[in-house]
Order: sequence, then structure tokens, then C-alpha cells
Amino acid sequence: MLKEAIYHRPKNNFAYAYNEQTLHIRLRTKKADVPYVNLIYGDPYDWDETDWQAQRKPMELEITDNLFDYWIAEIAPPYRRLRYGFELFSENETLVYTEKGFFNEAPIDDTGYYFCFPYLNEADVFKAPDWVKNTIWYQIFPERFANGNTNLNPHGTLPWASTEPTRTNFFGGDFQGIINHLDHLVDLGINGIYLTPIFKAYSNHKYDTIDYMEIDPQFGDKNTFKKLVQKCHDKGIRVMLDAVFNHSGYYFPPFQDVLEKDEASTYKDWFHIREFPIKTEPKPNFDSFAFTSHMPKLNTKNPEVKAYLLDVATYWIKEFDIDGWRLDVANEVDHQFWRDFRTAVKTVKPDAYILGEIWHDSMPWLQGDQFDAVMNYPFTMASLDYLADQKITAKQFANQMVNVLSSYPKNVNEVAFNLLGSHDTARVLTLCENDKQRAKLLYVLQLSFMGTPCIYYGDEIGMTGGNDPACRKCMVWDKAAQDLDLKSFIKKIILLRKTEAAFGNYGEFSFVEANEDTNHLIYSKKNTDDTIFIGINPSDRSVQMTVDGSFQHKQAKNLWTGYEMELKADSLIMKLEANSFLIVKVSD
Amino acid sequence: MLKEAIYHRPKNNFAYAYNEQTLHIRLRTKKADVPYVNLIYGDPYDWDETDWQAQRKPMELEITDNLFDYWIAEIAPPYRRLRYGFELFSENETLVYTEKGFFNEAPIDDTGYYFCFPYLNEADVFKAPDWVKNTIWYQIFPERFANGNTNLNPHGTLPWASTEPTRTNFFGGDFQGIINHLDHLVDLGINGIYLTPIFKAYSNHKYDTIDYMEIDPQFGDKNTFKKLVQKCHDKGIRVMLDAVFNHSGYYFPPFQDVLEKDEASTYKDWFHIREFPIKTEPKPNFDSFAFTSHMPKLNTKNPEVKAYLLDVATYWIKEFDIDGWRLDVANEVDHQFWRDFRTAVKTVKPDAYILGEIWHDSMPWLQGDQFDAVMNYPFTMASLDYLADQKITAKQFANQMVNVLSSYPKNVNEVAFNLLGSHDTARVLTLCENDKQRAKLLYVLQLSFMGTPCIYYGDEIGMTGGNDPACRKCMVWDKAAQDLDLKSFIKKIILLRKTEAAFGNYGEFSFVEANEDTNHLIYSKKNTDDTIFIGINPSDRSVQMTVDGSFQHKQAKNLWTGYEMELKADSLIMKLEANSFLIVKVSD
Repeated sequence: MLKEAIYHRPKNNFAYAYNEQTLHIRLRTKKADVPYVNLIYGDPYDWDETDWQAQRKPMELEITDNLFDYWIAEIAPPYRRLRYGFELFSENETLVYTEKGFFNEAPIDDTGYYFCFPYLNEADVFKAPDWVKNTIWYQIFPERFANGNTNLNPHGTLPWASTEPTRTNFFGGDFQGIINHLDHLVDLGINGIYLTPIFKAYSNHKYDTIDYMEIDPQFGDKNTFKKLVQKCHDKGIRVMLDAVFNHSGYYFPPFQDVLEKDEASTYKDWFHIREFPIKTEPKPNFDSFAFTSHMPKLNTKNPEVKAYLLDVATYWIKEFDIDGWRLDVANEVDHQFWRDFRTAVKTVKPDAYILGEIWHDSMPWLQGDQFDAVMNYPFTMASLDYLADQKITAKQFANQMVNVLSSYPKNVNEVAFNLLGSHDTARVLTLCENDKQRAKLLYVLQLSFMGTPCIYYGDEIGMTGGNDPACRKCMVWDKAAQDLDLKSFIKKIILLRKTEAAFGNYGEFSFVEANEDTNHLIYSKKNTDDTIFIGINPSDRSVQMTVDGSFQHKQAKNLWTGYEMELKADSLIMKLEANSFLIVKVSD
Repeated sequence: MLKEAIYHRPKNNFAYAYNEQTLHIRLRTKKADVPYVNLIYGDPYDWDETDWQAQRKPMELEITDNLFDYWIAEIAPPYRRLRYGFELFSENETLVYTEKGFFNEAPIDDTGYYFCFPYLNEADVFKAPDWVKNTIWYQIFPERFANGNTNLNPHGTLPWASTEPTRTNFFGGDFQGIINHLDHLVDLGINGIYLTPIFKAYSNHKYDTIDYMEIDPQFGDKNTFKKLVQKCHDKGIRVMLDAVFNHSGYYFPPFQDVLEKDEASTYKDWFHIREFPIKTEPKPNFDSFAFTSHMPKLNTKNPEVKAYLLDVATYWIKEFDIDGWRLDVANEVDHQFWRDFRTAVKTVKPDAYILGEIWHDSMPWLQGDQFDAVMNYPFTMASLDYLADQKITAKQFANQMVNVLSSYPKNVNEVAFNLLGSHDTARVLTLCENDKQRAKLLYVLQLSFMGTPCIYYGDEIGMTGGNDPACRKCMVWDKAAQDLDLKSFIKKIILLRKTEAAFGNYGEFSFVEANEDTNHLIYSKKNTDDTIFIGINPSDRSVQMTVDGSFQHKQAKNLWTGYEMELKADSLIMKLEANSFLIVKVSD
């Protein structure tokens, strides 16, 4: 067995509390190198007693990528404490792996050799709000969703959809427009809206805040916003706002004060000014988002700034009953700020949702003390690469997703925010070169995958657009110009997600096959009652695939057509048409 | 190159802020498998520009154990942001390792492939108090150090050292006794005292607290304690107390209230009672330390309990000016509590020291948000196994310590609390089978190693004793019965630590040799001026060893004898006598 490949380290994704009673212990080994692994475990203070001495439990092979196998065992220690090690077996070798390294036999003289999960404290359990698991998100860019009150139009507002969006033009989208079109969302099955920034700002995207305590006048006033949230709640839709706390806008009064008074400003420590006098060219001499002088980075370590931003965070919850915050450029703000942010937010609304914008490995933010989820861009990119651009194979897609899934605890993966696009990326249909069938396969994948999906406004009716600003076109409300076939397709999958528990987030996810030759993908979601198999075939040839299993006395149904399917006692035959998919439920 | 052995994951010990400007990036590879590694790096928002596009920097081989090599690069990104990857070269292969896996060439189309250290925020930098680096700790078990006020003797107190210590007997040690003997500590060179618990408790060890706001009457009153701290501070000695916050004692009034009133007690949620009525036999039906019914676990998630304990934590700092807290059974208390504890403590005393008792891998507590250090028991055990019990070789010792050193950031290792024994373990000399020479080698090792050393009371004068309670004998104050040779030996090394900057914690630590045949160990500590080589030979044969280096125009001095030594331009010959050591300084 290859010792160099064997890896475990307590906490993070390798040893974590799945809930208040249960620990998950994982182990990594070289792919196909270790046929059998036992978890050796016991209570640290009762290791020697006969009835609870070091016990063994076989670990399950959870997932596998091109280099590694990942094993998992679930255990509920009666006294919430655990010492443990791993017993690895191959044909001619036994290896015991502990915190102190490798042994030929399990050490019995001291529990000190073993790995330690000292105590399962409820306070440390990662726990996203329960409602998130069942949420289908919809992202709205308010300036471009609907213009419901032309009296609010900013100066120079263009007629709706009269021209292509640019970085600076305005079309007058507002809250009343959203309110007017909530039925569109209800019809689609949406139960969560994520609004990009709504606070007073300079630009059309509003990521350059002027006043965090005020609604941007082009969107409406606080009463209209309150009404929007109430109407959403009445229809079972949660509302999440965008917190741009990494940086303010150039016209944020404290920054203006610093620009004006330099070192004499009482706000000079609200930012990271590297030297005075302040300069914006050739590069700003203060820290900013990227090198953008109109987005000066806020000094979130400064107690005044922290108090101000936490006040903002709680104000919009307390006064308007919003349900969550999406955190812009979340990973460039200090962890300490986010810990205090979580405490403040959860104090006023314990089931508020906290979602970080992070494009990279996010484990340091997902340990229970900071975020409930991050935007799952690795999913976005792998999905688009596989089904839109078709530049990676099913196998590569599966490997990339195993890499993500194995990098986080299971309870983190269950609430990952799975998006296919946003205001920052080209639209799905455009990336599919307007091939609607490819886009449909993408929606099947997104809406059945582990995590909670988010649809970017207009994608559901076939809107197109390349990178920002082209992806921010005005929403099409003329039904004749909407792709209603695509809409009803997406609506149907969303309905499946809601009506078939295993298809949604109550099914345990597994890859069944990722085929290098035919490029098709099969995965399953399983709960105590049902197993649902999802097959996706983006190739131009149909494939027929046998899935092995214990299916005696069970029946199979094509969930898309509703037809019964043939099922043998030990196998299910899945025929995947070219450029198509298949969703099969196996149940008693 | 063996891909399965290559490991990196941002934050923790692989990518961390060493200080406010500097990042350390580490990589693990299979031992002796990769001859050369470059760090590829750049600013994420300026990757393409000519003047700051992805740059290369060779990584240094930092340390190596039996399976792996660990590489390190230090970098100070001008805008405090970093994307990076690794370029690995062997004779016939080049491999680029990124967050998205392995490539044959460095991807240039997107920085998204690379690992990300999003922002070096000052608030997140791990930073122990500056003074800790220069501290020589001394642990006192107050009941057994000195009886300075017989009026305070508890009922049944035995004459000092009149018999062996038991789990229940008392000898009347107190604060006045410590005050009376501070000169002994000053003489030795001690500048930090760690006192095991001093609060009102039932037992002689006081780990079963009755009142966290009161001094145990056998030790004195608050005035005497204030005087003790002041006297210590006058002599340049810091004072650290023991916070037993995982559990209270059986006679803690809130627990007594629960015992009396069961579910009707207002304190019922101060503990983890699994069912009422409360029972202590056969096992307690409430959570406790181990299975000890007289140490009920406190519910540190309960806001009342948290407020009470944080009040305790700040009270003893504000009123008595103590300098640090050692946290008993620290890893069984929730992280969230310790984060709040750190905030509370650092608010009232920014340079207070927070030391956790953790015997296992402690990375989750050493990320800047919880502890400043942990008790380095892996060092204790490896040192004793190598030099006291002599059951592991120099090579195994080095491997075990590389395992520890590579598991933490360098700034964490610099302040590790290195102990050879405590009130919980057998005494050093006893473990050395009363072989004083072995003990001396242990002190050389402890007092020159990376980290801050702690001496357990009486060890310095040759006291003996097996496991608890034998290791808690009354301190010997009769000079005729003290081993004054051992004391002056230890005093001399402490003085070296204070007078030779590189010998103390301002020298960069490296293993030079850990020899499997002769069992000797050589390591070095280096600063900009000097390199100090420390050789330890626990075998019965002398060994002569050549250390290679660039020594032209330099000179060598035996720091123990003060004699000049012969030094060649490219080598230093170290002759290690049997059961002996050598400390050599090479300087300009």
C-alpha cells in the first residue's frame, strides 16, 4: 500500500460533526490500492474496558477520482468523544495508520497514538438553515428585471430593451417591476430570490455603494422594499441581499471625506491608505478591489467600521425581515470580521442564510463559524466545460466534482450554492452556442445535483448574452419572445425536485458511471425509500448501459415520461438517447 | 514524480501569514523524489502585465522526514494578495501543480486554476505576545512548593515532606511560600511562572473548582495573591494561571443546586445533564471530564455560563494583572467559546498569553482566533523516548519532530510550550532511571529547541517521582538535599539562551543530522550573525562528525567551555563524547 498517498487530518473535511450526534471520519488512499479499511475507535477514557474497548467498523468507499479513493465511516460516540485510527488491509499487508504514523499492529498501550476528535460540541457543528436545502434560487439584477415605476427612472434612462446594455446605461428596473412579476417566479417554482445590490450607489450594478442604509432611489423607497419582501414571503419566497462589505464606492461619504481632508479626516482609518496625499493614478495608493480606485477597500478591523457594517447587516433584517446575505468578494475580508458578522446576524435571525462569494477552495470559511455556503463556481465551470463547451469529458467532470465533494464535509456539500451563471459570466445558452438541447442537459445536471441551485434571471426563457455587460440585458416580458418550451422544461425539473424527495436534497448522491468512451454520466440519489438514477448523454450517439443493483421486488419508472420501465432483479438497463437524458426512479 | 505524495492546501500550515507582510507557502513531496521546485506566483488582478506577471521563485527544502520532503518559500506580495502554483522538476519530467490539479505546463489563460491566498488581513495573522519568545517558564503546583504561612494549613495538614504524596493528603503549600522563594527562580533565570489552579476547590490539586472568583483559603487571600503577582513583576517574572473551564468541581454551587433540585434548578442548563433525576453511578448520567462524577462538564454554549466564565477570565487580569491563562482540557471545550474568550482576554490585556492544554494535533486551535500556543506534548514524548527511555533513535526523534514542525506554521512553532514533565507525568530524572547525565542531555535539548521551555518545579534540583501523585512531592528546600550541580547546569543553559540570541528563539532551527548508526543528533540555530550547532550523543561511544558549511573567515567557539575551536573553510569537526553534548557557535 502506498503510504505517501494515505492522508487524514482531524476536523475540516476529514473528521467533522455531521450533526449533533454523528461524526464522519474520512480517509484518503491511493486509487485502487487498498481493498479494505477498518476504522478502529473507542472512547478515550474507556479504551480498556471490555464493553467499549477499541472497536472496529468497516469503512465505505465513498468516492474516487483519478488518483485517490476516499473512505468514510459514520459514528455516533455515546459520550461524544473519539479516539480512532485506521486498519488497512491488502492481500499481503496490514497497516495501521494513526496520528503518530504507521504501525504493523494497532498499538494497545496508549490511546495517545490515535487520532483525536476531542468532543462533539453542539456550538461547533456546521449547520446551515434547514430551509436552504429545499430552496430553488433565482438571481435578479434589479436594474434589468422590470421597470414597474417610470417615475423613478434615473436621468437618461433608455426605453426597456431598446439597445444593448453597456457598463454605464440605465433601463430603469425597480422593485415595483419585481413585485409585478412575482407570479412568473411562483409559476417556475422559485422559492428564493437573490438580489444583487440595492443600496444607493453610483453605477448601474450598484457594487460601488454610497449609502448602505438607503435604498437606491431608482429602485424605490423603503416602503416599496418592505412590500416586496412581504409579497415574497406571502408567496413562500425568501429574499437574500448582496452585502458589499469588502469595499465601498468612491462616493461613500467617509471616503469622500478622506479624499478631501487627507490625513486630517476622521475617516482616514476606515480604509487602507498606504500614504498621504491620496492618489488614484497610475495605481491607487490605497488598497482597493483589484486596482479599481472607485472601490476603496474598507478596513474591517477598525472597530468603527465593523460596528457600522454590522449595524447595516442587522438593520435590514430587523426592519425588513430579509432572509439572507450574499457576501461580495468574501474571501478578501478578514475571517474575524465574518465571525462577528455571523454572530450579529444569527442573533437577530437564527435561520438567516450567509452565502460567501468565493471562487476558490473555501474550507477556511465553512467550519461553522463563518458562512453557511459559498457560491459553487467549481461546479459552474466543470458543468459548463462538460456540457456547454464540451471541452472536458464525463470522466474529467466527475473527477473535478469528486475533488470538490471530497474537499468539504457532506453537510457543507448539501447546501452548496450551485449556479450555472451570474451577472459576472456569459449566459448559459450563449455558452452552449445557442444549442438549447445542451442547455437542457445542463439544467438537468444542475437541478438534480447535490446542493441548492440558482437560476440567473432570464436564463429560463432562453435569454442570451456574452460576458458582462452583455449578460445583463433587459428581461424579456413579451411571451411571444420568451422560450416557453425551455421554461416549461425547467419548471418540470424543479417540480421533480420538490415532489421526489430523493431527487432533491434528501437523496444521498453517488457517481455511478462516468464513461471515457461514450462520454455519458450516470449518478444516483438515494433515500430510505427510493433510488433515482440520472443519466446524461451529451454525445451524438445513443448508449445503452446496465446499472447493477439489488432490485428484487422493486419497480422502475421513467420520471420524465411517467412510464414503467423493465427492471431485472440485479440490473437496470438505461438507454440514453443521443444528446439526451434519463431520470429513473427505483422503488418498492 | 509521485503525484499521490504531492500535497498543498491553503491556510493552516501550508499557506499562512508569518507576519503582517509575509506569506509562507509550503509544499509536500515524496522524499528525495523532486530535485527542484519553483513557486509560480502573481497578483490575481495583474497576472498578465509584463512587470508583474506570473513570476518564479525557487522553493527551499525546509525539512524532511522518512516519507516526505517539505518545501518552503517566503513572499511579501506588494498588494497582499496572491495566486500561486508549483512547478516541479525532475530529470525527465516537469509538472505544474495547481488547485485544479496537475498540468504539464503552467496554465496562462486564467488565474482561476491557481491556488489562492485571497488577502493578507492583519486581523487574521497568528501573533503570540512578543515576550513569550524570551520566556523560560517554571510550573508550580502550589500545594507542594513551599509552606510560608502555617496559619492557613487546612485541617489535617502533614508536616512538610513527612510522607509520600497521596491523592488526598495536604502539606500546606501557599502563596507566601512562593513569595519567600522567588529568589530561587530568579537565580535559575526563570521569567515566567505557571501556577496550577489556585481557586477555591476541594482537592489538593484544585482542578475541581468550587468558586472561580475566590482564592483557595489554604493558599492565602486576594491581597497575598496581589502581592505575589507584584513581586513577580518586580523581578521580571510573568504569572500564568490555570483556567479549568471544561468542568467545574462537584461542590461548585450551581452543580450542588442541580443535585438538590434536579430539573427545577435554575442551573440545570449550566451542565450537560442527559436525564433527570441526576445519578453518579455506575457512570454519571451527565457529561463530565472522563467518567469522573466530581468534575461535571460545563455547558459553555449557555450564554449565562459563558458570561460567567468570561467574567472570571477578565476579573483576574483586571484586578490582579496576571499575564496569561493556561486552559485545562482545552480541546473538549467548543471553539466558539475560546474565540469569545480570546476576544475578552485580549481586550483587557492585549499581550496576555493563552496556552491550551492539548495533547494531540492542535492546528484547529492555532489559527489566530483562539490560542497563542499549546502544551507541546509530542515534543515531551519524543524527547523522553529518545533520551530518557532510549526506546527511539535519533532518526525517529527527528522524524517525529519534523512531523510536528511541518504540521504548524513557523510562527506557531516558535512559541510552542515545550515541557519535559508536569503534574500529570512522571518526573524527568525518574524516567531517566536516575541517570543524571541523560537528564542533562534532555535539558540541553529542551532549552535549545524551537519553542519556549517550561521546567516543572523541583526537576532542576533533581527531584524524583513516578506518575501522579508521586510526581507531586513537596519541594526540597534543604540545600544539602538539592542537586546543586544539576541546578547550575540548567542555569548555565538558560543563561546561554538569554545571552546568545541565535541559541534562543531568534535563531532559525534546522536539523543537520540524525544518525541511525551512532544515534547522535545535530541541529543548528541561525540568525543573521551566528550559527549555533548543538550536538547530542546519548550513546556509550564518542563520535566524530564533520559538518559541512561555508565557514571562510569565520571562527568557532565551544559555548560550554568558552574555548576556540578549529574551523576549516568548508567544515566544522564536531567531536561528541559518549553520553555528552557539544554547543558550538560559528560567527564572523
